[in-house]
Amino acid sequence: MNEETVKNLLQKAYQPGQDALALHPFYKGKIAIAPKVCVRSLSDFSIWYTPGVAEPCKEIRDDPRRAYDHTNKGNAVAVVSDGTRVLGLGNIGPEAALPVMEGKALIFKYLGGVDAYPLCLDVREPEALIATVKALQPSFGGINLEDIESPKCFYILDRLREEMDIPVWHDDQQGTATIEVAGAMNALSYVGKPLGEAKVAMVGAGAANIAIARLLVSAGVKKRNIVMIDSKGVLHSGRADLEADKERNPQKWDLCVNGNGEQIEGSMKDGVRGADILIAASRPGPGTIPPDVVSAMASDAIVFATANPVPEIWPWEAKEAGALIVATGRSDFPNQINNSLGFPGIFRGALDVQARTITDGMCIAAATAIADMARERGLSPDYLVPSMDEWEVFPREATAVGMQAIREGVARAPASADELYHHAQEVIGQARDMTRLLMESGHIRAPP
Amino acid sequence: MNEETVKNLLQKAYQPGQDALALHPFYKGKIAIAPKVCVRSLSDFSIWYTPGVAEPCKEIRDDPRRAYDHTNKGNAVAVVSDGTRVLGLGNIGPEAALPVMEGKALIFKYLGGVDAYPLCLDVREPEALIATVKALQPSFGGINLEDIESPKCFYILDRLREEMDIPVWHDDQQGTATIEVAGAMNALSYVGKPLGEAKVAMVGAGAANIAIARLLVSAGVKKRNIVMIDSKGVLHSGRADLEADKERNPQKWDLCVNGNGEQIEGSMKDGVRGADILIAASRPGPGTIPPDVVSAMASDAIVFATANPVPEIWPWEAKEAGALIVATGRSDFPNQINNSLGFPGIFRGALDVQARTITDGMCIAAATAIADMARERGLSPDYLVPSMDEWEVFPREATAVGMQAIREGVARAPASADELYHHAQEVIGQARDMTRLLMESGHIRAPP
Repeated sequence: MNEETVKNLLQKAYQPGQDALALHPFYKGKIAIAPKVCVRSLSDFSIWYTPGVAEPCKEIRDDPRRAYDHTNKGNAVAVVSDGTRVLGLGNIGPEAALPVMEGKALIFKYLGGVDAYPLCLDVREPEALIATVKALQPSFGGINLEDIESPKCFYILDRLREEMDIPVWHDDQQGTATIEVAGAMNALSYVGKPLGEAKVAMVGAGAANIAIARLLVSAGVKKRNIVMIDSKGVLHSGRADLEADKERNPQKWDLCVNGNGEQIEGSMKDGVRGADILIAASRPGPGTIPPDVVSAMASDAIVFATANPVPEIWPWEAKEAGALIVATGRSDFPNQINNSLGFPGIFRGALDVQARTITDGMCIAAATAIADMARERGLSPDYLVPSMDEWEVFPREATAVGMQAIREGVARAPASADELYHHAQEVIGQARDMTRLLMESGHIRAPP
Repeated sequence: MNEETVKNLLQKAYQPGQDALALHPFYKGKIAIAPKVCVRSLSDFSIWYTPGVAEPCKEIRDDPRRAYDHTNKGNAVAVVSDGTRVLGLGNIGPEAALPVMEGKALIFKYLGGVDAYPLCLDVREPEALIATVKALQPSFGGINLEDIESPKCFYILDRLREEMDIPVWHDDQQGTATIEVAGAMNALSYVGKPLGEAKVAMVGAGAANIAIARLLVSAGVKKRNIVMIDSKGVLHSGRADLEADKERNPQKWDLCVNGNGEQIEGSMKDGVRGADILIAASRPGPGTIPPDVVSAMASDAIVFATANPVPEIWPWEAKEAGALIVATGRSDFPNQINNSLGFPGIFRGALDVQARTITDGMCIAAATAIADMARERGLSPDYLVPSMDEWEVFPREATAVGMQAIREGVARAPASADELYHHAQEVIGQARDMTRLLMESGHIRAPP
């Protein structure tokens, strides 16, 4: 790769930011409210509002589950953040998190047909965040947590999953994990290495990688075959700093004790040596992972370097250093590993069976649906998972997730796979159609 | 009025409820999320979401006010209820309140172009409700409280108005008061009685009438000329039950002491005797107010009987008993006094100047704008205020509210009256247009 190309790629990485600064104030918000019912004349308001509305209210008073029939609850998701770890920007506050949460809501609609509303909360303590989210339960069919700092995000998620009766999901944990596991399944399958034997090195020990490790184990990877590396080196049971922190971050400590079966100590390179797959969820590159780290891996090495906007190592650097398969978070390289491939379809499925929660089993079902679709179309080192453009993936995920919820007994409204698939396809199709209609009619203006 | 007609009118009062039971499950929700930005291809998501979105986030981190440029905050209102006093149904819980709050959000959009989101909160204590609403501040440009029981609603509103930096409005207080004051201004003007001399009787002592009394005083009525009546009779300073409750409900006690200048005691009829205008916000009729109560009023009596779905006294009964002007909450009688005439335009104006609050002065400005428009078109005993169909009223209110906010120094983004009027007209027009478009294109299906 010559210098000119690298310069172009770096510049390309920052182009969307420039466009964003111009276009955000042009539109002043990414989502709006639209009517979902007919308004033939103003007298229809006597049906939608007082006095007529009293009758549906009474039915829900007598049986709160009827809210799923009489309101939009069953298609509504709150996208909640306290702004403490927004993108790679850290704790920038809830106001500054709002553009991200609005973007998430836009993607929820466009790819999943889900009505998501961005709620950036001005709260300091985990307990205040937990209390606020619990208070929101009546209006929503699900909660998507986002960009909450680690390790408190683990505790918050666990508490909310336990105490709420609708799915609570932290996309930086479960969402990221689902897509990475789908990619890992197919990459390992392509190189002919079974999950149960794969040696996994993970660079970065934040919410994403800790959740990925957990889901990899659910999918069949042996925990002892996972070696995690943080900014101070390899995780092992001699890490006094992490033992001291084990109350606050028990999952990370668990990976010190029960991961890293050989109890390797040392640097990033020491931890990665001999690994079949390296999963990085760390600081943006270039240069976060030096090429010699990749060179130390096993043959047919797989590298997932998903930091945005610049991966921890450039794909060509990783390949020159011996990687056979490289995935990043960028759409301008092959194998984009992107959360947007997951949450819209997963929530679609969870909502459509009125699921009480989203279990790890449902995440694995989604990952398998994603992986299967790419496999049917023909795996290659440059095609591990479908792209977002192949939108058939979303109804497939929705169906897999809904059916798994039914199998696990967490679905309040069971349905057949056929029903789930066709409903998802219809609702997602309508969302895309509506977007086109609003653009063509000038309700969404063309950008300047 | 013959018996057949009364039967028909009663039946008509309950027809919307029957339609509501059929149509709510058909649509499953009254509002949805729509995209507000172009999606030319999926690569636009790199502008609206990661990586591009980081740049607007950084600008807001450095100056939180930039949220008004980069997000929908400036057009977003939370419609918040705890479900403790929904319509006339009492404490039916937050789930059961959701159809009402969705209806409110629909009207916010259709009549005001405002993006309102229904949030029904599962909270028990006033402090929990206050904490939750305060936590929501980053995402919204305003808060509309709704259907919260009295007297705690007074305390909650006062606290939130004091502690938040965006407008907090309780529609059952300020909203109702604004429209009733507009109607009272024009009714008293029509019969040639100045506000400063009018004798006002009020039947019902809940949130609505207490707020109406306060705003009437702001508009020029003398507090000593207001006689309020609750279920136990006239309010006066000898009411030991209300004195005992004065900590919890200080505004009601204030009307005992500082209202009712002659310290009348006794029944509803005693309180209403000689009044120029009777304002009822009480239990639905028919029969809540007997005709002989109206007969005891001064000449050219004015009766506002706004309970839904059946007014406290039928309009023809009130007229037979001597009333010259009668207003109700129903659209099938003349002079509909309806909150929907207020909040959409008032929030439009408050949002468009990024107001910090909605003052009583802004409510009076809105009431005056409503009253003026009817006066220009020609007052009559059957035309006190415009109907919702005369939608020019909303941009006029918005302009009056915005200009008053600027005068009072609570506007963060001053503008000219012309700018405010044209912007409101455009945004509201677009909302109606979008509704028609969604209906014509089949995105909103025709009802069965």
